[in-house]
Amino acid sequence: MSYRIEKDTMGEVQVPADVYWGAQTQRSIENFKIAQDINRMPKEIISAFAYLKKAAALTNRDAGVLPEEKAALIGQVCDEILEGKLDGQFPLVVWQTGSGTQSNMNVNEVVAYRGHVIKGGALTDKEKFLHPNDDVNKSQSSNDTFPTAMHIAAYKILVETTLPGIKTLRDTLAQKSKAFMNVVKIGRTHFMDATPLTLGQEISGYVSQLDHGMKAINNTLAHLSELALGGTAVGTGINTPKGYDVNVAKHIAALTGLPFVTAENKFEALAAHDAIVEAHGALKTVAVSLMKIANDIRMLSSGPRSGIGELFIPDNEPGSSIMPGKVNPTQCEALTMIAAQVMGNDVAINIGGATGHFELNVFKPVMIYNFLHSARLIGDGCVSFNDKCATGLAPIEANIKKHVDNSLMLVTALNTKIGYYKAAEIAQTAHKEGTTLKEMAVKLGYLTAEEFDEWVVPGNMVGEIK
Amino acid sequence: MSYRIEKDTMGEVQVPADVYWGAQTQRSIENFKIAQDINRMPKEIISAFAYLKKAAALTNRDAGVLPEEKAALIGQVCDEILEGKLDGQFPLVVWQTGSGTQSNMNVNEVVAYRGHVIKGGALTDKEKFLHPNDDVNKSQSSNDTFPTAMHIAAYKILVETTLPGIKTLRDTLAQKSKAFMNVVKIGRTHFMDATPLTLGQEISGYVSQLDHGMKAINNTLAHLSELALGGTAVGTGINTPKGYDVNVAKHIAALTGLPFVTAENKFEALAAHDAIVEAHGALKTVAVSLMKIANDIRMLSSGPRSGIGELFIPDNEPGSSIMPGKVNPTQCEALTMIAAQVMGNDVAINIGGATGHFELNVFKPVMIYNFLHSARLIGDGCVSFNDKCATGLAPIEANIKKHVDNSLMLVTALNTKIGYYKAAEIAQTAHKEGTTLKEMAVKLGYLTAEEFDEWVVPGNMVGEIK
Amino acid sequence: MSYRIEKDTMGEVQVPADVYWGAQTQRSIENFKIAQDINRMPKEIISAFAYLKKAAALTNRDAGVLPEEKAALIGQVCDEILEGKLDGQFPLVVWQTGSGTQSNMNVNEVVAYRGHVIKGGALTDKEKFLHPNDDVNKSQSSNDTFPTAMHIAAYKILVETTLPGIKTLRDTLAQKSKAFMNVVKIGRTHFMDATPLTLGQEISGYVSQLDHGMKAINNTLAHLSELALGGTAVGTGINTPKGYDVNVAKHIAALTGLPFVTAENKFEALAAHDAIVEAHGALKTVAVSLMKIANDIRMLSSGPRSGIGELFIPDNEPGSSIMPGKVNPTQCEALTMIAAQVMGNDVAINIGGATGHFELNVFKPVMIYNFLHSARLIGDGCVSFNDKCATGLAPIEANIKKHVDNSLMLVTALNTKIGYYKAAEIAQTAHKEGTTLKEMAVKLGYLTAEEFDEWVVPGNMVGEIK
Amino acid sequence: MSYRIEKDTMGEVQVPADVYWGAQTQRSIENFKIAQDINRMPKEIISAFAYLKKAAALTNRDAGVLPEEKAALIGQVCDEILEGKLDGQFPLVVWQTGSGTQSNMNVNEVVAYRGHVIKGGALTDKEKFLHPNDDVNKSQSSNDTFPTAMHIAAYKILVETTLPGIKTLRDTLAQKSKAFMNVVKIGRTHFMDATPLTLGQEISGYVSQLDHGMKAINNTLAHLSELALGGTAVGTGINTPKGYDVNVAKHIAALTGLPFVTAENKFEALAAHDAIVEAHGALKTVAVSLMKIANDIRMLSSGPRSGIGELFIPDNEPGSSIMPGKVNPTQCEALTMIAAQVMGNDVAINIGGATGHFELNVFKPVMIYNFLHSARLIGDGCVSFNDKCATGLAPIEANIKKHVDNSLMLVTALNTKIGYYKAAEIAQTAHKEGTTLKEMAVKLGYLTAEEFDEWVVPGNMVGEIK
Repeated sequence: MSYRIEKDTMGEVQVPADVYWGAQTQRSIENFKIAQDINRMPKEIISAFAYLKKAAALTNRDAGVLPEEKAALIGQVCDEILEGKLDGQFPLVVWQTGSGTQSNMNVNEVVAYRGHVIKGGALTDKEKFLHPNDDVNKSQSSNDTFPTAMHIAAYKILVETTLPGIKTLRDTLAQKSKAFMNVVKIGRTHFMDATPLTLGQEISGYVSQLDHGMKAINNTLAHLSELALGGTAVGTGINTPKGYDVNVAKHIAALTGLPFVTAENKFEALAAHDAIVEAHGALKTVAVSLMKIANDIRMLSSGPRSGIGELFIPDNEPGSSIMPGKVNPTQCEALTMIAAQVMGNDVAINIGGATGHFELNVFKPVMIYNFLHSARLIGDGCVSFNDKCATGLAPIEANIKKHVDNSLMLVTALNTKIGYYKAAEIAQTAHKEGTTLKEMAVKLGYLTAEEFDEWVVPGNMVGEIK
Repeated sequence: MSYRIEKDTMGEVQVPADVYWGAQTQRSIENFKIAQDINRMPKEIISAFAYLKKAAALTNRDAGVLPEEKAALIGQVCDEILEGKLDGQFPLVVWQTGSGTQSNMNVNEVVAYRGHVIKGGALTDKEKFLHPNDDVNKSQSSNDTFPTAMHIAAYKILVETTLPGIKTLRDTLAQKSKAFMNVVKIGRTHFMDATPLTLGQEISGYVSQLDHGMKAINNTLAHLSELALGGTAVGTGINTPKGYDVNVAKHIAALTGLPFVTAENKFEALAAHDAIVEAHGALKTVAVSLMKIANDIRMLSSGPRSGIGELFIPDNEPGSSIMPGKVNPTQCEALTMIAAQVMGNDVAINIGGATGHFELNVFKPVMIYNFLHSARLIGDGCVSFNDKCATGLAPIEANIKKHVDNSLMLVTALNTKIGYYKAAEIAQTAHKEGTTLKEMAVKLGYLTAEEFDEWVVPGNMVGEIK
Repeated sequence: MSYRIEKDTMGEVQVPADVYWGAQTQRSIENFKIAQDINRMPKEIISAFAYLKKAAALTNRDAGVLPEEKAALIGQVCDEILEGKLDGQFPLVVWQTGSGTQSNMNVNEVVAYRGHVIKGGALTDKEKFLHPNDDVNKSQSSNDTFPTAMHIAAYKILVETTLPGIKTLRDTLAQKSKAFMNVVKIGRTHFMDATPLTLGQEISGYVSQLDHGMKAINNTLAHLSELALGGTAVGTGINTPKGYDVNVAKHIAALTGLPFVTAENKFEALAAHDAIVEAHGALKTVAVSLMKIANDIRMLSSGPRSGIGELFIPDNEPGSSIMPGKVNPTQCEALTMIAAQVMGNDVAINIGGATGHFELNVFKPVMIYNFLHSARLIGDGCVSFNDKCATGLAPIEANIKKHVDNSLMLVTALNTKIGYYKAAEIAQTAHKEGTTLKEMAVKLGYLTAEEFDEWVVPGNMVGEIK
Repeated sequence: MSYRIEKDTMGEVQVPADVYWGAQTQRSIENFKIAQDINRMPKEIISAFAYLKKAAALTNRDAGVLPEEKAALIGQVCDEILEGKLDGQFPLVVWQTGSGTQSNMNVNEVVAYRGHVIKGGALTDKEKFLHPNDDVNKSQSSNDTFPTAMHIAAYKILVETTLPGIKTLRDTLAQKSKAFMNVVKIGRTHFMDATPLTLGQEISGYVSQLDHGMKAINNTLAHLSELALGGTAVGTGINTPKGYDVNVAKHIAALTGLPFVTAENKFEALAAHDAIVEAHGALKTVAVSLMKIANDIRMLSSGPRSGIGELFIPDNEPGSSIMPGKVNPTQCEALTMIAAQVMGNDVAINIGGATGHFELNVFKPVMIYNFLHSARLIGDGCVSFNDKCATGLAPIEANIKKHVDNSLMLVTALNTKIGYYKAAEIAQTAHKEGTTLKEMAVKLGYLTAEEFDEWVVPGNMVGEIK
């Protein structure tokens, strides 16, 4: 490989000849040889940096501290980043400095040097048209850019991937709930036979969970909409022009189309990432919901012959390398694994959020890495589950009918007729002797066969159907 | 001990002669000998049951399914429970059935039998005026009462203990922030010297964290305000009179003075406890904030001679059994231990929430136990921290001044005058040679002593003071 | 209430007249009004302190730094503590100083003042025969006593409660495994029908899990056997007589009958509690196992009519306040709630363990509180589950036979006869057409009815029975 | 792109023309579009599969159920996989079926089809020389291969990456501990000044933590050494030749050079992954240790002017994009972020381990993904921290001396001379009046200046130096 020499305040560094990055990026590659093949800084963070660098350049231009030409050039490179044209230029890993300084400098260097090349310069030029610190990073610090990138990336993925993914699944389940609203089935509490409900009612609970989950996520967006940018080194905004913080947030809002505002308190915005902790708290709530829903569907579809077998799920692939003809609830499995991951990620985020000191939390990369991971998994996972499982859900009517008709818990309908104690005696004795409720009710003399048929009607036990 | 005989649908049980509970409570005592000395069902749940049993009685009376006299008697016993007069009558532990059925029956039995005694009966009477199931539990199931009690208890403790506790601490910190707004001190990022800010600004970050934390908790109250009551066994509302769910929620709202409403979807309300998961997500966010704040204060007050020593905290007790005269940041320690506990409780709640099946989540007791624990710890912990630490915070001016004056990071003020690179050279050389910035700046010839004095003024580096 | 005056180095404090504790205990009560009704320092820690204070007195006497009479008196009070005679004298909570200093002083004060009274003095005497610091705490610091008490308490509860509890359950399951070793049943993978195994084989997996779990706990005992005592303030052993650390560990070993030794490195022993973290890692492994086992039993016993229904579990109590005759797997529910709690406790312990600084970890109380909670819950929970559920487990043969005979996965036996693809075709077509495997196999012409009967024998598909 | 047609039991699938994988791999790509760019099945699992497929082929050959030529061909492709020649052929993600069946089939297909090509066939041939199920997967099931691959991968990474990484850091710290064993410094408890110790003693605590951590990991290897292979579908070993399980473990042991044995209980080995849970419990213990150690070093090196400043750490890169000349403890930051991640991963693993049902745990991929992530991060992180930080640690003697000389806690040396109370009075008054201990001791008349100089010698307060 051929190299060129780049410099920073610590001296010279050899950099691969053809990359746009510079000395500080290279130092980070060499200083942090940790899981470099698997834990790159998430691409969502790089994109977020592109938005903010462009916005900062525009704001600096507006404030008269950056020439129009430089601002335009910075914006042009940022657009290239957003278009994915510079994807190979961001080699750093999550496990670097806890402020994300090195990724900020990676972006600064790439923007500066790519800009220089666009303008006709060569990477080997000693002096370049754009300076990573003095131009691209003008009026900024890693300490306010990285948390700004965190919020941009987090907000964007929630509204572009996570919420739409959940919504897709929610809508399918709502449609299924409606379609199956009159399919009377046995209820199960404590995993034991209970009084009946309809399959549509059962599924409506999942819909309600997801509705509440989306509301929970939406509740956390306001905190995420606050941007640290303008706080610079410690939150005081040193070295920024007047009005910078408010204006740069406006530019970011305009570029992203999202309602970002400047954080009212910049000290919090650098020193703590409670917005990330809070928003991930909503994500883990959704993970909890998804675990429940996917487990139910897994179990309801169990069988085909010796399980519960009330719900049909699509056969997507052969299920076993040894058992011929086996089909498994694999989408449920992927989704529940995702739920486990998100619940684990939550703990990593909590610890990161709790372990900041003084003016700067230095668990920024690990926090946003886990956040984006969860947001992505939930979004993708819901869509996969939707497309390959939920849309194909259908009741297996024969089993459903058999289960509800056999259930001893239909006896509950008799509470208001003959009292809890006699009803219990009927159920217990029927269970012991292996008879039907009706046979036992009549045998014990508590009611007639006709009364039984009139009073114990599963379809009348499911309440008002909405 | 003398006993009497009580009966349930399974047969006879010996019960201590003088207690108000009956057969099912006694069975639970004998069946769940698990940590009985330390893990009683939280008293907040018992109180919540008192509200809901009274409300259910009133609603049943309104619906004409329970005689006025019985309703009044039930209400009277519930009031006794709320006054703490029956505290010894609820011996069951958290580690019982996962639906909390046994605690529901404990309340049903105590209300029925105490009511019978109030009416002039004896505990040994075979037939009692009130029946635990048919009267006290009328139009109810454990499956809807226990989650209702969870929401009542959770909502109440948040608004009565947790939020006021946080608010108390927040207000003290806000007052301190204002009082110290002009105390210029060194900033620290990466735990290393950085540019200055004021002590008031630093503390304002904590205030902002707590403000956002309270907002986060408040965001979750709407979900908690939804009550399951009226869903009965599986969410369908079997065996309830028409309009019961809406009316009973109104009664509970009236009795508690809190804005409870009936849950729109009862199936979710029994089968999942995402509202608890979501609300505890806000509590753990606050725990994360408190860990950060208490750690900062612990570290800023470190010393007294060989630490950071910028913040005075009150001496509340001798700190060491061996080191005479030692004073420790013990309130910080209690609060950070609480934060650790809450983050652990969060995981227990997540797992409980995720592991429900079908129509009933059976991790109810462990979920609400952890929730109430966290809510209480944060509330009490904030008040203790406030009263014994935060109110006494004061700057140690001599150390603060020494630290800010010595800092090499004041050089940042020169970025916009001489550029980042020359500024770095000044700082690095001063560090290496152990001189002041000013000496080195002049020695390197980048500026005059007068320029230094004009440009490098810590008090001018802290931005606009609000 | 009447009071007396006690003094410490900070001055005078009013103490209830009749308690044995003194000034520092009282300060802690007043300074830490946090969950005082529910979170007392665990009694196991108080007992552990009794052992160590007695051992320290004996060691000091041996070393000639404490008079025989004082040592004997200290030992006498410690014995009273161990006998439970002074239970009301330890009012402090977990949420105090993170070193546990106040609980150490609580014990020091109670031992000194109770000793003084035993010797004939009065609590109101200005000078007492025993001094809390100079006599009872001689050659000690909170910093080495509290971690020593943690290890004593942790080791004791593991060998006295946790391991025997697990062993009890393990032995019952082993006996059940043997008893049901020839009950051929359907296997389930992915919660779907799979090839058969025997009920005894299935249960043998649980036995193996618990065997490995006990081994995992035992593996951590060596680290827990190391005692910090003798390290005093920071690990250097300041103010201890020569040989003190080794000798005091010998005394503790003799008094407890457990193989305690002095920690090789006292700096670790004060500054970190990795032994607690590691040992709780084993406890959470057992919690994971118990969750799996209890879930399986819950599901296998589901029904009675519309579930899986292969396993009978005892009916311990009425299961529902509304559904007459319902019986639930309540012991499974208690045990799985315990598992959730232990997994949560693990996180609290991790955070506590990770957040220590320099020479002293100050999350000691929260760490040991969670540890003892988990150890107790697992021990008690296993015994309860054993006594009220496991001992009564029995196969429900009719359902078991029906499920295995119906299963399409018996087709796996044909892989080696006709190949995986043809076998798959048989199973899939039988599934689609709702026939038996045999009918379809013959219909498709891949084998004769006789071959089917010879080759497809569930009892021959379960491997070698051990 | 051009395609070819592949078939499985569900029918035909279009596959890219030039890949070695087949129908089932392709189905998985299409069915699980979840984080496909970031969450590939870890390469360590693919390598582990290569060992086990080769071992299975050899064992099948030995048992006479697979021809020599086929066995050799399978082995040859496995070697290619191990050499990295087929890296692009394993496109599946973690978020697939929870048994890992699809990754097993991916390997089966690649081995079969690549083998066919080696033998001279074409990918488009209808019949291939090796069959994925009948040859490559012979005597195997996904259900026993995937857990076997998990154990192989987990054991290998622990002994090849994790333990050596920890050892490297441990050895450097041990060397530093020895080198600094006589550097007397102030101790800090509760983050407050305490009695002195030496820097070498302080670091010896870290060494002891890592020694115990490595022991903890080693303790878990025995469980990991047990292999599920031979259990096939549900643990019974259906469709395996006699002696297969023992022999295949021997082959794997020989190929890997690691002491693998067949699991005594195959039912556990498929249905639960307690070995992974247990071993990760040791990894999280090490994470806890590393958090503590890295935090200490971060804080001890804080400054350079206004922090604690007792420890020099290497300057690896410019620390700030805005503050010139700033150097940060970036290796500490990476390591503490890693610790947070591992503690989060632990929870994901626990939930996965706890949520298995019946004969098969279906959280296998998420469990091993997190396990390998943690093992890798700790291994790489320790080496990075070692090379770029620990090896360069050096005391900053001037600050160390200043801190120890100023400390009021030196007064502890007087306890045994003048008693705890007088010593406390000296320290407290000196603190209040801002004088030295010596001045105050003499002023209060408790001892002479000569006595002070004789009794209060920091170097005499650090105990015996080992």
